[in-house]
Amino acid sequence: MVNNFPPLIARIKQEGKCLAGGVLKVDSFVNHQLDPDFLMLMAEEFNHRFVPQSYDKIITIEASGIAHAVMLGYLTNKKVVFAKKKKPSTMDQSHMLTTEVYSFTKNITQHICLSREFIRAGERVLFIDDFLANGKAAQGILDLVQQAQATLVGMGFIIEKSFQDGGKNLRQQQIHVESLASIASLDNNTITLAQ
Amino acid sequence: MVNNFPPLIARIKQEGKCLAGGVLKVDSFVNHQLDPDFLMLMAEEFNHRFVPQSYDKIITIEASGIAHAVMLGYLTNKKVVFAKKKKPSTMDQSHMLTTEVYSFTKNITQHICLSREFIRAGERVLFIDDFLANGKAAQGILDLVQQAQATLVGMGFIIEKSFQDGGKNLRQQQIHVESLASIASLDNNTITLAQ
Repeated sequence: MVNNFPPLIARIKQEGKCLAGGVLKVDSFVNHQLDPDFLMLMAEEFNHRFVPQSYDKIITIEASGIAHAVMLGYLTNKKVVFAKKKKPSTMDQSHMLTTEVYSFTKNITQHICLSREFIRAGERVLFIDDFLANGKAAQGILDLVQQAQATLVGMGFIIEKSFQDGGKNLRQQQIHVESLASIASLDNNTITLAQ
Repeated sequence: MVNNFPPLIARIKQEGKCLAGGVLKVDSFVNHQLDPDFLMLMAEEFNHRFVPQSYDKIITIEASGIAHAVMLGYLTNKKVVFAKKKKPSTMDQSHMLTTEVYSFTKNITQHICLSREFIRAGERVLFIDDFLANGKAAQGILDLVQQAQATLVGMGFIIEKSFQDGGKNLRQQQIHVESLASIASLDNNTITLAQ
């Protein structure tokens, strides 16, 4: 189940920092500053793990998933759709799918939404995001994909915190989940990889 | 000053829709669904307009700017930093630059922030975003770049609403502003290009 991608592990060891409360800070290359060549290296690894012929479109969620999804979309020549965290003024209510996602980090329930135009019934969709922790965002995406009567073929994450139950819950639903790095613990300010 | 990029104009004419209140809906290829090959075509055009040797890093703002900035970063082999709309829990207050941005669309004032680590004194920065309307977000980025004692070398936008003052105000400050499409009016549900 655990399949750590060595170049990412090396970079996490070099640049990652543990903060209080089980927070892993990787904002120098994952979710604040981005290194496009390294994004492409990770996209190539996703492309080894998810057969490109098995999906039609990539879905992600704003904001931190976008860069990762777009790079895989560029590599595989597929369109990318990002779910939005608030209903934009340009989205017609009747053409919109919505669901609720509880954020533990922010302690709020947010709506995420998706235009029906961009995920159609019967389409096969791959979800890409930066972090998998409790899996609430992933579960919200699954709900949107199901509302659209599309098929979720898999979920790829840059980093999974395997000490939280998101990954376990998704895999119990027979979802093909791939994480490029699995972190078993961030206790004592130490990054411990899952084996 | 107006320099419309023909492939983008063609696509706006084909897929863009005018909504009430001067809203241009281009979410099939700019800010909800993304077409990575077309993103690269636009990045190549930005690369003709901003000499890559003139800047060190690309800055954008979450969420809709990220895809456009990342594609240019991939093309030019430069790092990308995206300003965040809320202070993330992983950002140390003392290492953070913040400024306020008023959003007309949402009628709220938001904080945007940037880690000092990723834009350093003396660095030359290019700003990329999807829309230029009243220019409040762009002005906020300029403030962050100045706080970092870095240099803003230019601002590139996918679509400028030239009937609002953002572009005029930025150009009056001697900023090199490039927009791939300039819209003169959205009155009467018609997209009228600037000439």
